Amino acid sequence: MKNSRRKFLRYFGLMTGGTLLSFDYASLHAAAGKSQARSSKNKMVLQFEPYILQLRHVFTIASGSRTTTPVMLTTITFDGITGYGEASMPPYLGESHATAQSFLAKVDLSRFSSPFLMDDILTYVDQIAPGNYAAKASIDIALHDLVGKLMQQPWHRIWGLNPGHTPDTSFTIGIDKPDMVEEKTRAASSFKILKIKLGGGNDKEMIRTVRSVTQVPLGVDVNQGWKDRNQALDMIHWLHEQGVVYIEQPLSKTAVDDIAWITGQSPVPVIADEALQTPADVNKVFGAYHGINIKLMKCGGLRAAYTMVNMARTLGLKVMIGCMTETSCAVTAAAQLSPMADWADLDGNLLISNDVFEGLKIVEGRVIIPDLPGIGVLKL
Amino acid sequence: MKNSRRKFLRYFGLMTGGTLLSFDYASLHAAAGKSQARSSKNKMVLQFEPYILQLRHVFTIASGSRTTTPVMLTTITFDGITGYGEASMPPYLGESHATAQSFLAKVDLSRFSSPFLMDDILTYVDQIAPGNYAAKASIDIALHDLVGKLMQQPWHRIWGLNPGHTPDTSFTIGIDKPDMVEEKTRAASSFKILKIKLGGGNDKEMIRTVRSVTQVPLGVDVNQGWKDRNQALDMIHWLHEQGVVYIEQPLSKTAVDDIAWITGQSPVPVIADEALQTPADVNKVFGAYHGINIKLMKCGGLRAAYTMVNMARTLGLKVMIGCMTETSCAVTAAAQLSPMADWADLDGNLLISNDVFEGLKIVEGRVIIPDLPGIGVLKL
Repeated sequence: MKNSRRKFLRYFGLMTGGTLLSFDYASLHAAAGKSQARSSKNKMVLQFEPYILQLRHVFTIASGSRTTTPVMLTTITFDGITGYGEASMPPYLGESHATAQSFLAKVDLSRFSSPFLMDDILTYVDQIAPGNYAAKASIDIALHDLVGKLMQQPWHRIWGLNPGHTPDTSFTIGIDKPDMVEEKTRAASSFKILKIKLGGGNDKEMIRTVRSVTQVPLGVDVNQGWKDRNQALDMIHWLHEQGVVYIEQPLSKTAVDDIAWITGQSPVPVIADEALQTPADVNKVFGAYHGINIKLMKCGGLRAAYTMVNMARTLGLKVMIGCMTETSCAVTAAAQLSPMADWADLDGNLLISNDVFEGLKIVEGRVIIPDLPGIGVLKL
Repeated sequence: MKNSRRKFLRYFGLMTGGTLLSFDYASLHAAAGKSQARSSKNKMVLQFEPYILQLRHVFTIASGSRTTTPVMLTTITFDGITGYGEASMPPYLGESHATAQSFLAKVDLSRFSSPFLMDDILTYVDQIAPGNYAAKASIDIALHDLVGKLMQQPWHRIWGLNPGHTPDTSFTIGIDKPDMVEEKTRAASSFKILKIKLGGGNDKEMIRTVRSVTQVPLGVDVNQGWKDRNQALDMIHWLHEQGVVYIEQPLSKTAVDDIAWITGQSPVPVIADEALQTPADVNKVFGAYHGINIKLMKCGGLRAAYTMVNMARTLGLKVMIGCMTETSCAVTAAAQLSPMADWADLDGNLLISNDVFEGLKIVEGRVIIPDLPGIGVLKL
């Protein structure tokens, strides 16, 4: 206990020769809600820098292949404390270093007197421009990290969640030739569930290859790759016999009636991914899918994601917490919510070779949230 | 600032002759998620006692009159810190001292190692028995108060809300004879909005009497008292001309189609009150009303209320935060959420003569949330 407390204090640079410098929360509170000019010391400062993630393997899904992912690393600093955030921007989603740079340059946090005004700040950021969800998430995550550190609490605890309830996470096997699929599946032997990308034209071969190596439960992510609802349902029945426990986005997100038809007859849960983005979309997919895949880069960050989880629970929808290829920063932020999820798909940091954060651990396939305040990461 | 910090510390009994005893948060965190036996010192203890609120005036709404309200006052104590809660049980809602006593006697908090496991605890409490929403709220509020105190933060700040955004609260004028309505309206001259109870058969007389005294905006609460949709719509048009800014529950909660018809044509927002109770009901009233009235005693406490506010925001529904006749305990808990509300109706403590808490203040008609951790109350 002592050690963990010392580590915590050292982390903040708050412990110097045994001296503990404490925050003046009363003055922070007094600042909240007032707009008077304050010294620059007590202004939030947003910084950001582009970075390129190197993927360990060529990553192929139904829509294409790539070997890198551009990200923007953000920090928000206030009163000597730094919160970390990240925007991950797979090219097919339309954001890029250029769009994120342009968006983030418009964000003026100096107009807010306190980071505790999260609702005001994130509403302001939302309204700067439409879209830009990854860029918005990079601010949302950094602000959550900062505020959690100021409160000296990790976010799962602020939300009242039990870190003992984190689910197993799946590890993703991209579309590939049998020898590579076999190799990747062997390398993933510590995971209790695998997510297999289908929709590339070799679906049964993919599954048979995985099954030649392991008998763990499988999730399947089609990324809108199937075209016909009858063939899709036949395939789902076959997949069910192979031990598949959910099917993600089997048809185009626009084929709502066909997906609702499949959902009505599927022996395994059908999960929406591309079909939903923000909290407002939860109601739209309700009735057509059994559950939703929530990703911080889709919805704009932890604030929206937390609302989506609560809406899904209220409506009886299953919840998956997913990610993009990301550093441990955004993946660990998402992990804070995972005690509320039915499934976690938090392997984005494992798919890259140049992570710049330390955060969540996967122990025997299960998500372990670090015992650190904020989103729970250390910058490497 | 210094004073407020000293007051805060004294409040916890943490300051003795200048010595500050700090919590060991690391060990609290280590406790979370484990079920091992712990010393009784670190067990949560729930206590409750019945109490009867004396109303300042006979309170008449469309469904009847009364002069008292039974409440149950609860405490949850952990590690020397006490969280306060309350169940308010107006008789027409079906709960009583007997039902609350019976429900609360079934609650075993000793099975949880830490109050930070709020999601587990409140889910367990929800599942003990159906209904009993006021009794459930009394635990939810006490647990929020306790956890906020352990985190040394008020709940509006934990939720990231700006205490500068609290709305004006309405003061409620019950159905009465003109001389009493006139007297009560004069006594409420500091409020910027009044809520007038209608549906008692003297609607126009009520409004004309209020208008003979004041020109402030009025809300109208019919408590399901009107029977015919055409007459209701005519009355709403007349009320609009009298400066009424919203209409609450004009017809029976079961008359969904008629209410949707009124909502489609009403010049002022139509708000659901009796028509909804829990988060699952938000979707049910969506489309039939412009907004919802959220009360802790209806939905089971702050956890459900916060979800309801976020769902309403997502769906574009207006939000009113209301209350029953309650002590300042439950009213102040509700006030923590009020920065997210379009309207507050937080006058329950003002309607009673034997409050046992000090909490929110109403200054020039506006809700002021106390600068104290937890739900923000002091026991008198």
